[in-house]
Amino acid sequence: MMKIEARNPSFVEEVKKSFAAQSIMHLIGAALTRVEPGVVEISLPYRKDLTQQDGYLHAGIITTIADSAAGYAAYSLMPAGSAVLSVEFKVNLLRPAKGEEFLARAEVIKPGKTLTVVRADVFGVTNSEQTLVASMLGTMFCAR
Amino acid sequence: MMKIEARNPSFVEEVKKSFAAQSIMHLIGAALTRVEPGVVEISLPYRKDLTQQDGYLHAGIITTIADSAAGYAAYSLMPAGSAVLSVEFKVNLLRPAKGEEFLARAEVIKPGKTLTVVRADVFGVTNSEQTLVASMLGTMFCAR
Amino acid sequence: MMKIEARNPSFVEEVKKSFAAQSIMHLIGAALTRVEPGVVEISLPYRKDLTQQDGYLHAGIITTIADSAAGYAAYSLMPAGSAVLSVEFKVNLLRPAKGEEFLARAEVIKPGKTLTVVRADVFGVTNSEQTLVASMLGTMFCAR
Amino acid sequence: MMKIEARNPSFVEEVKKSFAAQSIMHLIGAALTRVEPGVVEISLPYRKDLTQQDGYLHAGIITTIADSAAGYAAYSLMPAGSAVLSVEFKVNLLRPAKGEEFLARAEVIKPGKTLTVVRADVFGVTNSEQTLVASMLGTMFCAR
Repeated sequence: MMKIEARNPSFVEEVKKSFAAQSIMHLIGAALTRVEPGVVEISLPYRKDLTQQDGYLHAGIITTIADSAAGYAAYSLMPAGSAVLSVEFKVNLLRPAKGEEFLARAEVIKPGKTLTVVRADVFGVTNSEQTLVASMLGTMFCAR
Repeated sequence: MMKIEARNPSFVEEVKKSFAAQSIMHLIGAALTRVEPGVVEISLPYRKDLTQQDGYLHAGIITTIADSAAGYAAYSLMPAGSAVLSVEFKVNLLRPAKGEEFLARAEVIKPGKTLTVVRADVFGVTNSEQTLVASMLGTMFCAR
Repeated sequence: MMKIEARNPSFVEEVKKSFAAQSIMHLIGAALTRVEPGVVEISLPYRKDLTQQDGYLHAGIITTIADSAAGYAAYSLMPAGSAVLSVEFKVNLLRPAKGEEFLARAEVIKPGKTLTVVRADVFGVTNSEQTLVASMLGTMFCAR
Repeated sequence: MMKIEARNPSFVEEVKKSFAAQSIMHLIGAALTRVEPGVVEISLPYRKDLTQQDGYLHAGIITTIADSAAGYAAYSLMPAGSAVLSVEFKVNLLRPAKGEEFLARAEVIKPGKTLTVVRADVFGVTNSEQTLVASMLGTMFCAR
């Protein structure tokens, strides 16, 4: 991937602060585990109360961590004083979402003044082995 | 919309049973409020612990109820003994997700033996007035 | 659908002018058949040289008329002096694209200052009977 | 990327044969330039008659080569006697589609018995320099 520079010197703090303000992340038990310019990771331990009818992580919860990771990957590149909004995303569910924990890794593929396009992959992790369970392609909006 | 016939005479019970087995629905407080052939609705009261950094419903939770509604709309048309899986979905977030409660309304636009295509709209509801906040177009898989 | 007002009094002429400037529409033989505020239709007679390996209209050509219809539906609501760009779209191919001709019908579901969200359906038409063959959900950008 | 094995020993011939039968590829002047297990490339020289109102390649034509590349990337991994159909795709248009020619590069990210998920990038090429202009995430169906 290309190397991207952050324009906001305090982007790490800003991302952490915004993530901490997302109540839903506390409810589901997600944690911010990586914040770099254009790249953000969120991890989520498996919990039975996050599942669909077969005991796998619900596609909406996969999307929840992928969308936040994608949003913050975009936000990490925005100028100070910006706010980030999700415009849209598309998610392909590739395999049953099994794992002891889940990792959403988002990467900006096209930064922009108004719109930023982000790809995010979600992995199920068991015994440190990662299996790709979903892939997202989405668009984020920079509001000032 | 076209009138669609269910092939499984006990589809209402099957949808209710599967919905009850989705632990995530209990966690977020969602309820199944309509089950007809090809049409399913899920409602979700606003709760602060379901929100993103600005206090609006998180896009992933909007997706959670839209995806379940879409999956069950597809499932309502599948033959007895089937299981439903989400293949993919795309969601456009149209407005900030404000409301006292939220309603996801899914409707099958193309039933199929293996793949069923579903549209779902999510509304924010305040004083009984509905505002469209998101629209999904997705694909569901019939496993036997 | 909601009734939407155009802000540019000469939106019909603007859409026609821009459509006429799309060389690809001439190459494939597409025609602009309806322009109303937030609603645009494009029709395309079947031609063998527009097909994929089985003799059906190629998904990319279905997308070509759906995207132009969607873009112009958005453009019809933009202020004078705007230009329209496609941000992204998702297309579900619902049935083999058979027909004597094809009709793309696009409708704005959320107009906006910067982003406009549009739904477009593409029908195969045989003996005046329309069959839905594809559905698009996309986002358009207003540049000034 | 993972190394994927083809199951059909004559997959290269099959892809070439099917591509040659896509009349639309002849009309627009596209050529198949790479066929490996799970990876296919299609190139398309710029032509004025393939453009939208600003002289850039129309998003539908970008999609046409991306969809064929994606379909054949999936097809390359299918067993003998299969046929491939596009289920759906989502395309983000990242930059104006400028270039002397265009290259669509598709790669399977999840092969499957019935459904195969493919990512495709489209580059504008000028003086041998590639610029990413669009990215697709799509689903292909294996019919027997």
